[in-house]
Amino acid sequence: MNKIVVVTTLNIRYIVDILREMNATESFIHHAMEIILEDAVKKATDVREKVCEWRSPEQLKELLDLELRDKGESESRVLQYCRDAIKYSVKTTHPRFFNQLYAGMDPYSMVGSFITEAITTSLYTYEVAPVFTLMEDTLLRKMIEMIGWDEGGDGIFNPGGSMSNMYAVNLARYRYCPDIKEVGLFAAKRLVILTSQEGHYSISKGAALLGIGTKNVYIVSSDKRGKMIPSALEEKIKLAKSEGAVPFMVNATAGTTVLGAFDPIEEIADICEKYNLWLHVDACWGGAALMSKKHKHLLKGIHRVNSVAWNLHKMLMVPLQCSAFLVRDKTSLLQHCHSARATYLFQQDKFYDVSYDTGDKSVQCGRKPDAFKFWLMWKALGTTQLEQIVDRAIAMARYLAQEIKKREEFQLVIEPEYSNVCFWYIPPSLRSVPHGPERWKKLHTVAPVVKERMMKKGSMMIGYQAHGDKPNFFRMVVISPQVSREDLNFVLDEIHNLGQDL
Amino acid sequence: MNKIVVVTTLNIRYIVDILREMNATESFIHHAMEIILEDAVKKATDVREKVCEWRSPEQLKELLDLELRDKGESESRVLQYCRDAIKYSVKTTHPRFFNQLYAGMDPYSMVGSFITEAITTSLYTYEVAPVFTLMEDTLLRKMIEMIGWDEGGDGIFNPGGSMSNMYAVNLARYRYCPDIKEVGLFAAKRLVILTSQEGHYSISKGAALLGIGTKNVYIVSSDKRGKMIPSALEEKIKLAKSEGAVPFMVNATAGTTVLGAFDPIEEIADICEKYNLWLHVDACWGGAALMSKKHKHLLKGIHRVNSVAWNLHKMLMVPLQCSAFLVRDKTSLLQHCHSARATYLFQQDKFYDVSYDTGDKSVQCGRKPDAFKFWLMWKALGTTQLEQIVDRAIAMARYLAQEIKKREEFQLVIEPEYSNVCFWYIPPSLRSVPHGPERWKKLHTVAPVVKERMMKKGSMMIGYQAHGDKPNFFRMVVISPQVSREDLNFVLDEIHNLGQDL
Repeated sequence: MNKIVVVTTLNIRYIVDILREMNATESFIHHAMEIILEDAVKKATDVREKVCEWRSPEQLKELLDLELRDKGESESRVLQYCRDAIKYSVKTTHPRFFNQLYAGMDPYSMVGSFITEAITTSLYTYEVAPVFTLMEDTLLRKMIEMIGWDEGGDGIFNPGGSMSNMYAVNLARYRYCPDIKEVGLFAAKRLVILTSQEGHYSISKGAALLGIGTKNVYIVSSDKRGKMIPSALEEKIKLAKSEGAVPFMVNATAGTTVLGAFDPIEEIADICEKYNLWLHVDACWGGAALMSKKHKHLLKGIHRVNSVAWNLHKMLMVPLQCSAFLVRDKTSLLQHCHSARATYLFQQDKFYDVSYDTGDKSVQCGRKPDAFKFWLMWKALGTTQLEQIVDRAIAMARYLAQEIKKREEFQLVIEPEYSNVCFWYIPPSLRSVPHGPERWKKLHTVAPVVKERMMKKGSMMIGYQAHGDKPNFFRMVVISPQVSREDLNFVLDEIHNLGQDL
Repeated sequence: MNKIVVVTTLNIRYIVDILREMNATESFIHHAMEIILEDAVKKATDVREKVCEWRSPEQLKELLDLELRDKGESESRVLQYCRDAIKYSVKTTHPRFFNQLYAGMDPYSMVGSFITEAITTSLYTYEVAPVFTLMEDTLLRKMIEMIGWDEGGDGIFNPGGSMSNMYAVNLARYRYCPDIKEVGLFAAKRLVILTSQEGHYSISKGAALLGIGTKNVYIVSSDKRGKMIPSALEEKIKLAKSEGAVPFMVNATAGTTVLGAFDPIEEIADICEKYNLWLHVDACWGGAALMSKKHKHLLKGIHRVNSVAWNLHKMLMVPLQCSAFLVRDKTSLLQHCHSARATYLFQQDKFYDVSYDTGDKSVQCGRKPDAFKFWLMWKALGTTQLEQIVDRAIAMARYLAQEIKKREEFQLVIEPEYSNVCFWYIPPSLRSVPHGPERWKKLHTVAPVVKERMMKKGSMMIGYQAHGDKPNFFRMVVISPQVSREDLNFVLDEIHNLGQDL
């Protein structure tokens, strides 16, 4: 009798403890959510607030109490860390953030991301991710439909476009020679990948990682607008063959990183068919145009390619990361290429249809359910509003280009084809310097100084880079529907304010 | 004059529109956060609720309105989708979820994950991720200290342990022959990786992806407890050499997936030193023991290895994903091995110390700031409470093993070394069947049926698998501090309830 009483008392105490802890936990989460809503959502997207509160690494180390100690800290201290982390982070969702190929805040996909974080799970099996498995499948089918693969296809979401591009290289290699999966490349003929000089560096990183080697990525020339030159592609294919190498894959780019150029897919597809090469399209940036009746012509011919990488976390504003790799294949190539059939995870004696277990299509084991974020956003906005996001971004970029042309202190690098607007700011002191190396040398130093000033002021963020033989220029990327014409006018005014003394 | 008035009216209208939209957005986020707190946090972790609301793929497709349409849907519909997504998802944070190597809910890292999602950014440059860059650095240093690399090291967070293990293969290969990055493997001698039969399948997937080939992963035998046999390792190294191949890397495992076994690192390190091989430790699961003074002996010798993969999203309960790859190297091997020096991102004429731009250490381009989640959790709990999580999980696993030994209807597969508890349930009908193939064949069918019943009931989730010559057994993994002895007793009672008629 005594024993039972003791056990019961312990149980009650245990339950009371648990309940007390649960209340503290709830209270903490509640407070933290308030901070997130106030600081990371409202203030972060408020045009009257700074886009960044710049501190050098040395200063920031002093401001943040970074050290990890033996003893835990109070709720109020932890909440202060949350506030500080937000305060000193760059507000990529701010209407004046144009620094990257992502920007803006979509509330639906953001909420979707909170849900996937709270319901922490992995997409390897239907068993632990039933809802997200079906949503990924739905989304992939819809995207395949938009690409125009009438006979269907397959796909998977990956942590980023680089991974998606690497999947393309691996699948192309697998199709060329499935044995490489087992025996490696040691006895293989030298394999060659072809991509344009404007293509993303992940193709090169992928070639290094996959044991193909960066030198076996043959760089095809692009024209002045940044588009791959089909005849140059064919020459490089012939060159590789004449060397005894095996070209097996072409990477075309839909929306290059700097200029936003679209390679001519139709003509490249003709060449790939002629030489039996896998054609992959890196549409990480430009894939969004498929949403737009007005602009999808930029990707004309994409229904003919073998695979596509398409990031939803760029122009479609899903929080990082949300990247789809899509493949026009109905023979389970993705599964065959990547499977390892781990028996502890992919048991075949389960009580449901194990073809829903998609994990063995991936080179990862745990894989986040990124698709849900975009699925929820699509539900909320519908295809129509997704289309409007894209149309608006491109229209705004064109408006900005027109404004640039009107102002003598600015010069377009190239007429924009998509939503990248590349331009120089020419400070008054430079206007009289004649065109030539001296002027270009001086111009090269302008953007970095203006950039430093804008960041220290916190008024806006825009990327810059040199490119080919061109000195440093600004690359504006317009994405968020929250960006107004006023914001774009502000950008030009502000650059002039910051740089007119240079 | 007229023109100015029109523009001003438009501006006011625009601002009113924006404000109205902002209010709607806020209201949506607010409601969604309430749902998350109520359904995905409180209910999901409440032991009185179901761990899963099982539906077959076909049923679930009917329940969820998956189709993506042209037209967007109302806020109330979208909120209902959120509720449904949570409702039909598996509650991996529930005290009765023991199915995977992750479980439980830590409020601090969860809140950290919400912040990184709201402040959507990428870790490539200090410029766009100043706070998270410094926090990643702090965390990596601290983890390096715990490993015991007195002279420091380097590291990076990756989307999952498989990626971290692949980084190890790539770095080991780069150290063996840096030229492979450029020229590929075509002229290289056949490379060989060694890992134990209990090692994770990501080594094999990595070998396939990296062009080394799955056949060039030599499998070293393990002993009965699941630990790599050092003499067998040396034999396999000699075998590879005798074939003219080049063994270049050994993968030891600290905490194997199924049995939770720890390879003897000291003895393996002796062999790796003798043959000049890169020694990587896949401590994705077992790394947590480094937090515990009582249990860190399990990884004795880890200070001698070249690299370590350590997942914080497993026993340390950070929401997926949070995986560190750590390397004992002070020569920027990580940078040299992976860099592509993209000029649009890693400009050298920036106004701050660009050594803080860590992006070129990665094979990714965009990379999530996963480190923040764990940094915030560590701040809140301190090393002391992180240690308690680990100690408690292992203590609970030992308690469960003792209970299993007390019950005639259960049988341990192996005495647990870590927090995996592997056991058979022997239904009454089987107890009289003599030991031998017939009994094992019948036993093999028990776990899948019990599993099906527990999921359909929603009372708990535990993994099972066959392993080597052993028929299907349950693998309980105890992680969450929320799990009580009562929960563990319940597990055994419930299996018996569900399976006693078999």
